[in-house]
Order: sequence, then structure tokens, then C-alpha cells
Amino acid sequence: MKNLISMRDVNTQDILKLIDLAEKIETKKCKPDMSGKLAALLFFEPSTRTHFSFETAVKKLGGNSFSMSGTGSTSVKKGETLSDTLMTISMYADIIVMRHVIEGSARFASEIVNIPVINAGDGTNQHPSQAMLDLYSIKKTQNTLSNLTVGMVGDLRLGRTVHSLAQALSDFNPTFYFASPKHLQMPKYIKDDLDERNIKYEEIEDIKEVMSELDIMYVTRIQKERFAVLEDYEKVKDSYIITKKLLEGVKSNFKVLHPLPRVNEITKEVDDTEFAYYFQQARNGVFMRQAIITEILKLKY
Amino acid sequence: MKNLISMRDVNTQDILKLIDLAEKIETKKCKPDMSGKLAALLFFEPSTRTHFSFETAVKKLGGNSFSMSGTGSTSVKKGETLSDTLMTISMYADIIVMRHVIEGSARFASEIVNIPVINAGDGTNQHPSQAMLDLYSIKKTQNTLSNLTVGMVGDLRLGRTVHSLAQALSDFNPTFYFASPKHLQMPKYIKDDLDERNIKYEEIEDIKEVMSELDIMYVTRIQKERFAVLEDYEKVKDSYIITKKLLEGVKSNFKVLHPLPRVNEITKEVDDTEFAYYFQQARNGVFMRQAIITEILKLKY
Amino acid sequence: MKNLISMRDVNTQDILKLIDLAEKIETKKCKPDMSGKLAALLFFEPSTRTHFSFETAVKKLGGNSFSMSGTGSTSVKKGETLSDTLMTISMYADIIVMRHVIEGSARFASEIVNIPVINAGDGTNQHPSQAMLDLYSIKKTQNTLSNLTVGMVGDLRLGRTVHSLAQALSDFNPTFYFASPKHLQMPKYIKDDLDERNIKYEEIEDIKEVMSELDIMYVTRIQKERFAVLEDYEKVKDSYIITKKLLEGVKSNFKVLHPLPRVNEITKEVDDTEFAYYFQQARNGVFMRQAIITEILKLKY
Repeated sequence: MKNLISMRDVNTQDILKLIDLAEKIETKKCKPDMSGKLAALLFFEPSTRTHFSFETAVKKLGGNSFSMSGTGSTSVKKGETLSDTLMTISMYADIIVMRHVIEGSARFASEIVNIPVINAGDGTNQHPSQAMLDLYSIKKTQNTLSNLTVGMVGDLRLGRTVHSLAQALSDFNPTFYFASPKHLQMPKYIKDDLDERNIKYEEIEDIKEVMSELDIMYVTRIQKERFAVLEDYEKVKDSYIITKKLLEGVKSNFKVLHPLPRVNEITKEVDDTEFAYYFQQARNGVFMRQAIITEILKLKY
Repeated sequence: MKNLISMRDVNTQDILKLIDLAEKIETKKCKPDMSGKLAALLFFEPSTRTHFSFETAVKKLGGNSFSMSGTGSTSVKKGETLSDTLMTISMYADIIVMRHVIEGSARFASEIVNIPVINAGDGTNQHPSQAMLDLYSIKKTQNTLSNLTVGMVGDLRLGRTVHSLAQALSDFNPTFYFASPKHLQMPKYIKDDLDERNIKYEEIEDIKEVMSELDIMYVTRIQKERFAVLEDYEKVKDSYIITKKLLEGVKSNFKVLHPLPRVNEITKEVDDTEFAYYFQQARNGVFMRQAIITEILKLKY
Repeated sequence: MKNLISMRDVNTQDILKLIDLAEKIETKKCKPDMSGKLAALLFFEPSTRTHFSFETAVKKLGGNSFSMSGTGSTSVKKGETLSDTLMTISMYADIIVMRHVIEGSARFASEIVNIPVINAGDGTNQHPSQAMLDLYSIKKTQNTLSNLTVGMVGDLRLGRTVHSLAQALSDFNPTFYFASPKHLQMPKYIKDDLDERNIKYEEIEDIKEVMSELDIMYVTRIQKERFAVLEDYEKVKDSYIITKKLLEGVKSNFKVLHPLPRVNEITKEVDDTEFAYYFQQARNGVFMRQAIITEILKLKY
């Protein structure tokens, strides 16, 4: 692994290796050393959460970082090309972590500079470190990645998180339930991919009917503004709000994941149940990002 | 001390302990070690001065920090609740330093997260680390906190600094003079509190008459915009501007304090006198904040 | 050297000493130690590139920094004077790096505070660390600073970079060619200065005729908006765009420098030639800034 641009570049062995490394870092069985190295955290599209998570990972590794948030005060404003900005920054830093609204921008960056690039989100396309921390969270709670029944709920059309996760889990013989409003269903290219690999999946409208089968429920936000007609939103929104009542009768190993931020799609009362795992999931992100940086920079540990 | 939310939670013993610790840190008699720990500096309401002071304190302790300034690029914009933002950040950091415009927000934060919270200002309510650095500055210049005569000048109604300081000094048998325009006097709840504890205080309109009695004069800014009628402001403003001439005949131990920033309420010529202490006061803030963090995180030293 | 405000304060011996130190730092022959020290990076006028370069330098030295970018969230907004802001910050930090749009502001700062100040650009006036890294880049590529033939191209009237560089090189017996549109020629005070010191220079309109003589070509951006009449710009712009074709027949030691960001004044194809040196020049900036900070803070190495 020279870069981390897309989950499509990461094979099963890489996944298992990163999960193993994250686990060792979390349990302090190893302590990779990034001292003397500098990460450039380039958030052309601002994102406090992912930004803080990477910054925390870098600092826990003993490294340093400098940050850009938005493009307001940058050379971009003076007419500089993205390519020149990246080239210059690669003269200062040892690794680039980059979020940009344009799909493919991280791949583009990795082809220009001579230092490694981690894609921290390129538009609606990929966000591989999120997929990796999701996998790590599943592994930690289920003790395995294999043969799990996973429900995905909410906006499955535009959420890059669920796309990456569905693809990544496909190597581990999953059964999927995709619960979403009709016009926010999983995209065809993802389903074609699953078909080709003989993965069992079902598209449903109401997650309620399969709750007792699930090991993992992955919830995403349904954005009101995606609906042309408000009435359509009003009709479906209640099927996609996770309440404490909905969780009655689930399996004992069952967990709710969410990439956060949430708005109202999981009610506050769920937080206090043993099934809520989204905040720990955020914490897992720090360990996984430490593992990814360690692997890519080939840090000693 | 698990958190530092309000001076009302801090007893005399805590105050003396923190002052002692700040002194030891300043004189290098001890060197607390924050390495490996991370402070989240959450300035929902931006404040360069307090932000830099805490950031300096963290770094002088050998710790790391990450910062939020304003809410422009945060998940708050995506509709996340303050509670979720804080929960997530508590997954990354070891301590939260927080400024927020809403009164009570720091208390609220401390009840939600499992890591310590330092209130760096919640609206017009509390700013306890400022009160602590004020006490440290008084102790350093007077060699004691006890039996001092303290003049407070300017806007005493809305300045959270003077409220906290008046309450904190009450344990040390002070004599107060409160000099302010009529409609910017010390609030009744503060005066009731002083009455109950038999503290001597007097409300005056002109500080001039008591200058020779004072050990400490604490100056705050009178904001023109607080006056409904401009003529009222014009009438009083000159009584509340500290000039070099006003300082003639003060005691030799006398010092002028000010929380900064100032606008014109202390003239520039005062800076060069032996009585000006406001910039050293700012420096004292770093030592006191190191002490507070050390105490709350129970750092080794 | 207590501060670095202007190249006019730096003598030949200082220049050679800094270049020597930068070289030692780059080749790891010495490792200055800034641990425990704090730099305040005050970019009242934002500048990602210079900001990152200084931040990288500080962190590579093992020091810490805190940053201000713009004045939006500062005490400046509350009516504080620049003098008070600087005084307060000098209570927290060990050195100030400052960019401000007002000419003379860095000198002003150095006269107010008791800690060293590095000028990172004061309006169109001075940017001495840029001049120093330019000299370092020339030395590295030419193995000497002496007896070189240097072409300066583009907007020579308003580019502070070329002014500082022309003055700094004057101690080393250069030959200059100044290629610019008529109304963007080198200012008279610079030329008077060169005349007084018997430096050979020629003002030309087309750099093409002297290409084969040059050791160094220093390119700056011509800003369209400087032209009152668009036709005037259209007439000259092509003479000041550096193409691969223009570089045919240059000397083997020839290099193109540019302070960056560029817009279109050097074509992309030039990047891949052996003559392009602008990105390495940016990297040299980190080593030179490490040297400057080391010298000014008198760091051990």
C-alpha cells in the first residue's frame, strides 16, 4: 500500500492486516513511531469530525501535522492550479490526507506527488478510512467479519459509506438487507457487483420485519432535501427512524452503527442501550487511522 | 476537582493549591508531564487571546491539542446536536476546554462527556480560569490574598470577570470599592452574597477619592453601546479612564489589572509606570492554566 | 541578528552564515533543538504557503507553534490596538513570525515586543526569508553566489521578491537583465542603488535575446489587473511566458526560479525539464527558515 484512495485497491489481506494492526495499537501491544514526520491535512471541503480524527491519530503516533480547512485563504484564490498546490505541499510534508469535493481528486493527487496520499473523502465517491473503521467496529463487536447479516438503512443511494462497506464486506460471505425509500435505493453498479459475486441481498422497505435476524444495522441519514415532494418524505421518514421499541427482540450480539453526524434518525433513548455503538465507532476511527498511516508510511513498531 | 466550570465549585483550599502549583510551575520547581495527552480546544465563540493562552499552556506541558474556532465548518451546520458533537470529541480527546455563548453550556458538557471539562467562558456567566489567574496575579504582587483593598472600575454589571473575582476574594477578608456609572453597577445577587458574608464594600461614582487606599485596581471596559443615550456615556466616560495623573499618590504596592483587550480605558502612558501589571497578568494566565490542567488531569510532577 | 525585518539589515557575512547553516540542516550535519519553545505565526494577511513553510520549519526543529490567520476572530475586532495584541502575544510566545498588509508593521512590532520578530511580508515592502531562500537556491544550483548572470522576468515594479533579491545579490558582483513591460520596470530606487555600487544591469523587453547568457532566470507573475488597457496586456503577455521552446540552448547550469504561486507564466511542460527548480526552491525554504529561527533564537546545535 503506497496510498489509500479507494476500497477497490484494498484486498482481503490488506483489510485483515490493518484490522490486526489497529487492534494492536488500541491494546498497546505496539507503538508505531511517527516522530519527525509531518502530515498535511488538506480539507478543501471542511469536515471537523474526520479532520479531528486524523489529527488525533497523527498526534497519538507522535507525529506532527499542519492543516488547511476550506480554500478561503489559500493560493487557490490567487489562481494556482490544484496540481501546483499539491506539489508545493509535498515539498513540506511526508504524507497528504485530503478531502475534496471533486470525485477522483485524491487519485489525481496521488499521481502528481511523490509522497503518499490518503483519501479522506472525494465527493460522493470514496472515503476508505471510514470503511476501514466500520470494518474494525464490526470485527470488534462480532469477533469476526464472516457470515454476518447486515442491515443498511436510510439513504443508500448517495451515502458513500454504505457503498464502500457493502463492497468491502463482500469478501466475507455476508447477507444484506437494504432498507430505503424507493428512490434512495442502493445504486445499480453496487448491486451488479454483488450479483456477480453471488452475495445474498434483499431490498426491503421496512427494516422492522428483519430486525431479529441482524447482527449489524448500519444507519445513515435521510436528507429531507433529497425529496422533490415534501409529502413523499413525510410518508417514509418514520420507517427509517430507529427507536428503542424497534430494538426489542434483537440478537444479543446486535449493534447499531452510524457514521455520524446524525440528526434524528436514531432517537436519543437508543444511546443508553447496549446496542448503541456509534460513539465507540468514532473512537475506533482513531486507532484505524493510526494503523493506516503506520502501514502507508511504513513506520517502525 | 474533576472539572472547572464555575468559581462557586472551587473552595479556598483549591484556590490556594492552584496558586501554589502555578508558582511552582513558573519558577520551574516542578514540571508536570502531559505528553501523550490531547486537549480539545472548542471555541464555539472565537477568542484568540484565551485560545492562545490555553494552547500555550498545553504545549508548555508537553501535551497536544486540536482546535475549533467558530462553528462555520463543523457538524453543527449539518444539524448535529451540541450533545453529539461533544460526545464524539470526547472519543478523541483527554480533556475539553470550551467557550460557548450559551450560559450553562459548560456545565451541560460536563454532565454529558466522560472526560474533564474546563469552562473558558459561557456567555456572561463564568470564566473561572480568568478569575484564577487574577487571584494569582494579586498574590504575586501583594504577597497575600488577605485583607486587601480592591477597587473595581468600569462596567461592573455585565463583566463576568469582576463577578467571579469579587466572589473568590470574599474568603480573604477584602474591602471593595465599586466604581461605575449608575446603570452599570454590580448586580444585586453579588451584593447580597457579600452582605451575607459581612464583606465591606462601597459603591462610588468616582474612583479618584479612594485611590490612595487601594492595593489593587481592577479595570474593565465600558462599552459605549450599553448606553441608550449617548449623552449619558459622554457624561461618565472620563471618570472611568485611568490616566497617569490619577495614579499620583497611590501606595507603593499598588497595581492596575485588566483582563484585556482594552480599548481606551487605560491610557498608553500608564503602560510605562511601575503600576501597570496587565501584560504580566496575561503571562500569569499561562502558568495558572498549566496548573489547572495539571490538577484536573492529575498529571505527574 | 535579533530580528529579521529587512534584507537591508543583513550583511554579506550574515547571508553566508545562514546559507551555511541551512545546508548543514538539510544534510543533517546539525540538528538545532527548539523543544520547549513556541512560535506565534501571526498571518494578519493569510498566506497558506509561507504559513505552512514556517510551521514545517518550527516543527522540524522540534518546537511548537500557534497560528492566527486573518483578523476575523481576534481582539482586533473588539477595538484592540495592534500594539496591545502584539504585547499580549509576546507574553505567550518565544518568537513572532508576522505577515501584515501594512508596510513597516514588522519593524513596528520589533520595536514594541521583547521577543524576536521575523517579517514574513509587510505589504509590497520586504519578505526577507523569501530572499534568503532564493539565495540558498541559487547557491545550491550554481555552487556560488558570485559573478552570476541573472535574468529577472515579469512584474519587476511591484514584486517585493525581486527587489530584495537584486539588493542581496549586489554584494556578489552579478550581471542583471531586467525583462518587463515598460510600465512594470524595476523601481528607480533599486536602479539608483545598483548604479551607486557599479552593478552591471540592462533593461530589456524580450528575455529571448539573452537566454544563452543566463545562469538563473527568476520569473514573477504579471497580473492582468495591473494594466489599464487590456490591449496593452495582450500585446506583452506572450513575451513573459516561459515555454520549453524558450529554454533551447541555455547553459547546462541554468535554472528557472519562481516564488510561486504561478498562474500561467511558466508552462506546465517546463516542469519536466532539468531546468525547472521552483518546487525544490519551495522545499529549500523550510531549511532556510529553520536556519533563520535557529540563528535568531540562538538555538543549540
